[in-house]
Amino acid sequence: MFNPSDHPHRRHNPLTGEWVLVSPHRAKRPWQGQQEKVDRSALPAHDPSCYLCAGNLRVNGERNPDYSGTFVFENDFAALMPDTPDAEAGAGTGEGGADGAQAGDPLFQNMSARGVSRVICFSPDHGKSLPLLSVPAIEGVVDTWCEQAAELGATYRWVQVFENKGAVMGCSNPHPHGQIWASSFLPNLPAAEDRRQRDYFARQGRPMLLDVAEREAGSERVVVETEHWLAIVPYWAAWPFETLLLPRFAVSRLEDLTREQRADLALALKKLTTRYDNLFETSFPYSMGWHGAPYSPAGEADDKQPWQLHAHFYPPLLRSATVRKFMVGFEMLAESQRDLTPEQAAARLREQSDEVHYLDAEL
Amino acid sequence: MFNPSDHPHRRHNPLTGEWVLVSPHRAKRPWQGQQEKVDRSALPAHDPSCYLCAGNLRVNGERNPDYSGTFVFENDFAALMPDTPDAEAGAGTGEGGADGAQAGDPLFQNMSARGVSRVICFSPDHGKSLPLLSVPAIEGVVDTWCEQAAELGATYRWVQVFENKGAVMGCSNPHPHGQIWASSFLPNLPAAEDRRQRDYFARQGRPMLLDVAEREAGSERVVVETEHWLAIVPYWAAWPFETLLLPRFAVSRLEDLTREQRADLALALKKLTTRYDNLFETSFPYSMGWHGAPYSPAGEADDKQPWQLHAHFYPPLLRSATVRKFMVGFEMLAESQRDLTPEQAAARLREQSDEVHYLDAEL
Ligand SMILES: O=P(O)(O)O[C@H]1O[C@H](CO)[C@@H](O)[C@H](O)[C@H]1O
Ligand SMILES: O=P(O)(O)O[C@H]1O[C@H](CO)[C@@H](O)[C@H](O)[C@H]1O
Repeated sequence: MFNPSDHPHRRHNPLTGEWVLVSPHRAKRPWQGQQEKVDRSALPAHDPSCYLCAGNLRVNGERNPDYSGTFVFENDFAALMPDTPDAEAGAGTGEGGADGAQAGDPLFQNMSARGVSRVICFSPDHGKSLPLLSVPAIEGVVDTWCEQAAELGATYRWVQVFENKGAVMGCSNPHPHGQIWASSFLPNLPAAEDRRQRDYFARQGRPMLLDVAEREAGSERVVVETEHWLAIVPYWAAWPFETLLLPRFAVSRLEDLTREQRADLALALKKLTTRYDNLFETSFPYSMGWHGAPYSPAGEADDKQPWQLHAHFYPPLLRSATVRKFMVGFEMLAESQRDLTPEQAAARLREQSDEVHYLDAEL
Repeated sequence: MFNPSDHPHRRHNPLTGEWVLVSPHRAKRPWQGQQEKVDRSALPAHDPSCYLCAGNLRVNGERNPDYSGTFVFENDFAALMPDTPDAEAGAGTGEGGADGAQAGDPLFQNMSARGVSRVICFSPDHGKSLPLLSVPAIEGVVDTWCEQAAELGATYRWVQVFENKGAVMGCSNPHPHGQIWASSFLPNLPAAEDRRQRDYFARQGRPMLLDVAEREAGSERVVVETEHWLAIVPYWAAWPFETLLLPRFAVSRLEDLTREQRADLALALKKLTTRYDNLFETSFPYSMGWHGAPYSPAGEADDKQPWQLHAHFYPPLLRSATVRKFMVGFEMLAESQRDLTPEQAAARLREQSDEVHYLDAEL
C-alpha cells in the first residue's frame, strides 16, 4: 500500500502550481561530494574591515553613520536603477508572466526595468544575526521592513524584502543585513503567486494561505506557533528544511501589521531562527524573503484581498553544517526533488530548543 | 535612449514563459564572497578508489565490468523506483503542471511516482571529460543517450538524460559520467516547455525552436555552428554562460537522429565543451541535459511535431574558475537576474579556441 513516508511521490505547491518529487528512502545514500566550510567561532561586535559596521568606510568612499538599531542605504552596485529609459514598442508588459508576452515578436521580447536596491543592516553589532538579537531589536528590523515596503510601494509595483545569509548563499559579509529590491514590474514568482491566490480566492472565497494556516495549526508540519504566527515546513517544501512563515489572521502587506502583530512576529522569528541555528549548531544559511500584495502605483485596481502576507525561508543544508542539497541536474532540467519528507524535517526542527541558542548554551 | 547593453531590462523566455532580469552595468561590482576550489591538475586514466572506473567495486559490492566505450548501470540510490504503488484517489495527474491539480483537496495534493535512475560512464578513462574525448568516442556517448531514451520511453512518460559536472554542481566523482532519470510523470519544466511549444506551433505552424535556430544562425549569440547543429547563448539566458544546443533541422527526440546528425552532434559537443573549458582554463562545471518530446506509453496521442529536441547547458561560473553566480535571494524569491548580456557572454566564448584544449596547449 502507498505510504508517503516511504514511497517516492510528488506533492503539489498551490502557490506556484509546481510539483516537487519526494524520495524519502534516498536520505540513506552516502555523501562523497563537496563539503561546505563551517566557522563556528563567534564574531566580534565590531570588525574594522567590515563595510557595514557603524562608522566604517564603504567601497564608494562614503562613511556609515554611528547607527544604533537598523541602518538603510542604497546598494552601491544596484541591479535596478530608477531612471532607465523605456524600451521600444513590441515588448510585453511583463504582467502575469507568460501572458504579458504576446505582443510583438514572440521569440525576442524585452522590456525596460526600473527600480532601486537598498541594503538594511539589522544591527550595528557585527556578530548578532537574527537569532542572537533581542526580541525588541528584531522588532526594530520588522519595523524597518514595514516602513521600506510602504515607502517603495508608493512608486514601484513590487517590493522584495529579503536576506541572503551565509557564504554558501553567496553572502559576502557576515554582518547581519538584508536587502530590498523594488521593481517597476511584477517578477515571475510573485506573478505566479498572484495568479494562483486570485484563482483560489475566486473559487473558495477565502485567502489560500489563511486556509493553510488554519488547517496546519497543530499539525505535524509545524515548526513554531505563536499567538499570531505559524511557521511550517509546507506540505510542498522543495528545500530540505524550507519553511513558510504565515500570519494566523488576514493581512496582505507588511505595513498593515499592528504593533502587537509585529512584536509577536519578532518573537516567532527569534524562535524559528534559533531552531535553525541549533539544528546543525551553525549559523544557519538561507535566503528568506517577504511576499505581500503587489502595489498599484500606476493606478491598477488595488485588489489585495486574495493575498496573504508570508515569508519563505529557503535553507540549503541537508544533513549537517557541511553537507548541502544541490538543486542541479534533474532539478535544473526537470523538477525539484527532496530526500526527506517535510514531516520528518519539521520533527527534526521541533526537537531543537527555541529558547536557548547553542552559542549561549556553551557559555 | 534605451540601450540593452547598458540599461537594466527583462527578456522573455518563450520556452518557459518566464522573464529574466538583465543588469549589464552590474558586472563591475567587486566580489568579496565565497571562492570555489579549482583543481587544474590532469586526472589519471585509472583511479583505484573510483567507483566508476572499469573493474572497480561499487558501494553495493558489485564489480564494474572491464568496459571500453560507455557503461550504463542502475543508480544504487535511485530517487525513483519502478514498483511504487498508486496513491489514494484525490490526487492530480500531474500532467500539465498546475492544471492537473484541480481534483481533490486543492491545498494538499500528492500522486505516487514511478521511474528508474541510471548512471552512464562516458569512458573507462577517469581523466577524459567530454572535451578531452575523441569525436568518435563522443559519438559513442550520443549513441548511448539515444538507446537509453528509446528503451525507457517505451515504459515512461519522460526520460531525462543529464550530466552534473564539477564539485560546485554537487557532483561527487570527477569520473566522466551522466545520469538518466525516467519518470511515470511529465516533470514541471518539460511540462511548461510542452505547453509553450504546442501553443507556438498552433499559432505559427512551425516548431518554435526550429524558428529560433534559423533566426539565430550567424547571430551575435552564436557560440558554435556546425553543419547540422547550433549552440547559442539564448536571448533569454539566465546563467552567465548558459547555452542552448539546437538542431538546424526538424527532429523531436534523440533516437530519431541519423548517423550523420549524431556524428556532427559529437563534433558540436567537442567544440562547445572545449570553448567552455578554455574560457577560465578549468574543467568547466555545469548541469546539462536533453529535452525531447514526451513519450506516450499509456497510449496518449503521440503528437511530437511541435517539439524540437534540444540540450540546455547551465554552468554556474561568472568571472573566473573560482567566482560563481549565486542564484539566491532575489532570484529564489522573485526572478532570475544576470550581470552580463547574453551577447557579451557569447562573444567571450567565441574568442576561445574550439580546437585546442588548454590542457593540450600546455604540453
Ligand atoms: O545523483 P547524485 O549525483 O548522487 O546527486 C546529484 O544529482 C541529483 C540529480 O540531479 C540531485 O538530486 C542531487 O541533489 C545531486 O547531489
Ligand atoms: O547583492 P549581493 O549580496 O552582492 O549579491 C547576492 O545577492 C543578489 C540578490 O539576491 C544576487 O543577485 C547575487 O547573485 C548574490 O551574489
